[in-house]
Amino acid sequence: MKLSEIGEFGFISRFSPLFASLVPESFTGIGDDCAIIPQNGKEDLVITTDLLIENIHFLRDSVTPDQLGYKSLAVNLSDIAAMGAAPAGSFLSLAIPADTEVEYLDAFMKSYHAISEQYEVPLLGGDTTRSPGNIAISVCVIGKCPKNTAKLRSTANDEDIVCVTGHLGDSAGGFKVILEKTAMTSETGYLVNRHYMPVPRLPEGRLLASLPGVTAMMDISDGLASDLMQILKASGKSGTVDLDKLPLSEMLEKVSFEQGWDPIELATAGGEDYELLCTVSPSHFKDVSEHFFSTFGKKLYPIGRINKGQPSVQWIREGREIIFVKKGFDHFK
Amino acid sequence: MKLSEIGEFGFISRFSPLFASLVPESFTGIGDDCAIIPQNGKEDLVITTDLLIENIHFLRDSVTPDQLGYKSLAVNLSDIAAMGAAPAGSFLSLAIPADTEVEYLDAFMKSYHAISEQYEVPLLGGDTTRSPGNIAISVCVIGKCPKNTAKLRSTANDEDIVCVTGHLGDSAGGFKVILEKTAMTSETGYLVNRHYMPVPRLPEGRLLASLPGVTAMMDISDGLASDLMQILKASGKSGTVDLDKLPLSEMLEKVSFEQGWDPIELATAGGEDYELLCTVSPSHFKDVSEHFFSTFGKKLYPIGRINKGQPSVQWIREGREIIFVKKGFDHFK
Repeated sequence: MKLSEIGEFGFISRFSPLFASLVPESFTGIGDDCAIIPQNGKEDLVITTDLLIENIHFLRDSVTPDQLGYKSLAVNLSDIAAMGAAPAGSFLSLAIPADTEVEYLDAFMKSYHAISEQYEVPLLGGDTTRSPGNIAISVCVIGKCPKNTAKLRSTANDEDIVCVTGHLGDSAGGFKVILEKTAMTSETGYLVNRHYMPVPRLPEGRLLASLPGVTAMMDISDGLASDLMQILKASGKSGTVDLDKLPLSEMLEKVSFEQGWDPIELATAGGEDYELLCTVSPSHFKDVSEHFFSTFGKKLYPIGRINKGQPSVQWIREGREIIFVKKGFDHFK
Repeated sequence: MKLSEIGEFGFISRFSPLFASLVPESFTGIGDDCAIIPQNGKEDLVITTDLLIENIHFLRDSVTPDQLGYKSLAVNLSDIAAMGAAPAGSFLSLAIPADTEVEYLDAFMKSYHAISEQYEVPLLGGDTTRSPGNIAISVCVIGKCPKNTAKLRSTANDEDIVCVTGHLGDSAGGFKVILEKTAMTSETGYLVNRHYMPVPRLPEGRLLASLPGVTAMMDISDGLASDLMQILKASGKSGTVDLDKLPLSEMLEKVSFEQGWDPIELATAGGEDYELLCTVSPSHFKDVSEHFFSTFGKKLYPIGRINKGQPSVQWIREGREIIFVKKGFDHFK
């Protein structure tokens, strides 16, 4: 049997039960954006790691080394944001073909440094080695949060309001611009930039984790449809999403109209938004939402509800349930 | 300019000064076996990461998935051992070609689990993705040690005795057996096993770090010649190694004699020994050495001295200095 027949999640489910008994009860292991290791009476440690492979996650021809250096750290910071934690340090491992230009690597590292400086994340270690083929980039980020405040996927409650911190689908639109070589305009350029330079929602994550009533949280990396299912499965709930409420940028709407794309498909199945997806108890929603707006000058968008029931998403359009098949990426299929 | 012209250490030296100002003063960053992050009044956190690339670090035809799963974690545990710390959790990221047999991956994970269980290291997370070419394995291990006890490379003193925890060159001999397809005997089999199944010296590292007089420590991964230079550079010292004192296994001596290999070259330049290299003050050496022997029933081998002077190694054979050029691996050259 080939790996492609069972997929990424199929593979993980084969070995993760084997390892479960080794995890101390106070730890959170496989299955959330970060692992959580309790440190002391005051703080918990959160850790995340991501692997970026050339020709799978990026094409060297269509991403600059600056963008790549930025994004390598940004996507890991997004996982730290999803826990409501603050980053404390990063580790960068690179496998590089020997004929790579040093100037390319200098640009990569300069940009990795710029985002490290922006978010005050020291680079503490890593590994560099030769690669016989593609570039491989492995980043690990360690973060900290006040004890027992890290937000999990498994803690959504019935009736909670499903929210997102910003526009969805821009990154997938940007990726389509790149693939289809759509003419560059200020709007398509905006989308491409959202694809290559996602903003990790660190302050948003920290605020949300500190407010009463925010129950579950994760970042949207595989697409809303796939990622909301992660919360629903982990929490043992079903959910409803009102497609008319999905926040779409004017730029995505304009480019989608011109190109004949379905922006809702991009916003649900596209992936790499790196906005935060959270659930908020209905009695706290008004306070949370006002606090969010007064702090960041932007809306926390309510897009759906958590319900009792088997893990599944009901998609609503113009008040009626519709069927929606795409479920986001599975890297092996 | 190509990466191959400047090598791995050349590349690292281009960017590490840029990042130095971001590292808090109480942290230890790039340049040791692990990074150190202080946690609280009692404990420090140590973190290490390693990247293993198919066709660079291993050939799929000549290593079983069991050996590969074991070694992926073992080499990282060796870095934790080198600090004198205890492992607290691991993170495993895999990039895998889609046509890989699931049975191959099951065997890899079963063996990764066996060593995780042996050393009580929970697998806490990671990332899995498709690879267009080679398998890439990135492992990160987190460990803990009592506050301010982690052993560094930079703290060797004049007159210290340079010691190693076990036989050198076996792993390099085993690698030669594999490359040269030497006939399998109990001796060549022993060497191959030492190459694929290195034992992380965790209890040895913890004991040494707890004893007064042990000044610097690291693990031998690139070979004695290269790794001792790391201690000498970090400590601003020179060193002497008595080649007649290098501990060689009977198996290595026997196979080397039969095959016409130079075991001393394998023991100094070969790499992947994963024994610990430490420096011990002369006034404490007797106590440390006796304590080591009574705990583990094996010798702590004194092989040389730390001296004042520019970082360099003097190699002594039969009481006279000899010139020795090989310096171990540099992955880009």
